[in-house]
Amino acid sequence: MVILKRVLNQADTLDHVFQALADPTRRGMVDRLSRGPASVSELAEPLDMTMSAVVQHLAVLEGSGLVTTEKVGRVRTCRVGPALQLAERWITERRESWERRLDRLGDYLAETAPASPKKRKP
Amino acid sequence: MVILKRVLNQADTLDHVFQALADPTRRGMVDRLSRGPASVSELAEPLDMTMSAVVQHLAVLEGSGLVTTEKVGRVRTCRVGPALQLAERWITERRESWERRLDRLGDYLAETAPASPKKRKP
Repeated sequence: MVILKRVLNQADTLDHVFQALADPTRRGMVDRLSRGPASVSELAEPLDMTMSAVVQHLAVLEGSGLVTTEKVGRVRTCRVGPALQLAERWITERRESWERRLDRLGDYLAETAPASPKKRKP
Repeated sequence: MVILKRVLNQADTLDHVFQALADPTRRGMVDRLSRGPASVSELAEPLDMTMSAVVQHLAVLEGSGLVTTEKVGRVRTCRVGPALQLAERWITERRESWERRLDRLGDYLAETAPASPKKRKP
């Protein structure tokens, strides 16, 4: 029951993480933060949108765990959150599984294909 | 101009890829296909939904490049498509950039922090 709950929670988290990454502005924010923490104003600075729109995108990112924010005094500092690794792990596991299958298929074909034409059985 | 167009196209592709991954049924289909090709009926078999809903999910996956399909005779076979690697690369690059930054910060702190308390200058 605990495991099922954890699996369901993770599915829900992945829904939000991938949804958050499906927007170019939000990917741009994650890209910026991957190079170091930034205040909300620093994040907003290169973007051609209202501060309210920036804060909304940030809320989606924070809700998904892709970004964490911390307010010290009057400045809210944003950082990359743990969900980026969660999303990476999900994709990497599927890509690896798929490539292992292709490798096995390659091995099988190499083993079963004759190096030189064999005589047919009579 | 060609490069800009390519960057914009890739952004558009990533929008669709992450959007496609934001749904648990579609992630389940990618997961199934990562273990080997499947027909549409095989994909639909464990799912508690109409064939029309399955086909719609599949269309989203195919549109994003996460899945490719090929029809031979009356059977449409589905496979993992190239967009899975595209999504992985985008996330991995950001995660690596972020970890390099954390490493540099760690190095900096290790270099500047005194191993033992030093005498203050008079």
